[in-house]
Amino acid sequence: MTGTDAVLAANDAFYAAFEARDIDAMDAVWEHTERVVCTHPGWPRLRGWGDVRRSWARLFSGPQHLQFVLTTVDVEVVGDAAWVHLDENLLERGAAGTVAALNVFRRGDDGRWRMIVHHGSSVATG
Amino acid sequence: MTGTDAVLAANDAFYAAFEARDIDAMDAVWEHTERVVCTHPGWPRLRGWGDVRRSWARLFSGPQHLQFVLTTVDVEVVGDAAWVHLDENLLERGAAGTVAALNVFRRGDDGRWRMIVHHGSSVATG
Repeated sequence: MTGTDAVLAANDAFYAAFEARDIDAMDAVWEHTERVVCTHPGWPRLRGWGDVRRSWARLFSGPQHLQFVLTTVDVEVVGDAAWVHLDENLLERGAAGTVAALNVFRRGDDGRWRMIVHHGSSVATG
Repeated sequence: MTGTDAVLAANDAFYAAFEARDIDAMDAVWEHTERVVCTHPGWPRLRGWGDVRRSWARLFSGPQHLQFVLTTVDVEVVGDAAWVHLDENLLERGAAGTVAALNVFRRGDDGRWRMIVHHGSSVATG
């Protein structure tokens, strides 16, 4: 598997965990360090795995069950760092929208790519 | 100068160019390749230096003269890639707001760090 394929697999695992609202799968996707950052659309930046994990647990316990169609996926790999740009096209009952997302991954000493940054911003419509 | 200091200097040069509305300085900050990406708050993602440069030229010719106070600046360097998280606290006549920004830099063969991604998202207030 090339670096690009491995990064895309890690990125797919993130969205699978998100759609399944599976906090254990989300645990497996992320690096568990203080340097991880997650910025949900419209939210202030969350720093450190503790706060980031709590945000996912809260989202997964809420009423929204988000499903995505991911489009225009671009990957860049630079050594042990990589990032993926994509559009999250949200499919929700009675709502639709697009989030421009940037996901950064870090390859650990064990060769596994783990998410270190997720940053999403809502794209204005009309 | 450490890698972190060099990345912070490149990041400072970006905001200096932004505040000065100086397209030549912005030219010097960015990598001039097809893989650069810029996502202004609320905008769809722009890909490639041509479209990214045109967006800055358009912003600089418009009425808004943005000034920032940058807070909670965090830097991560992983080999020849680095990213900076920060809050852009906008100071504008009659307006205020915060943008959560993520700036990614790539060290070139000449040792210079150049911006390869800028992603900003407005933080909701209230």
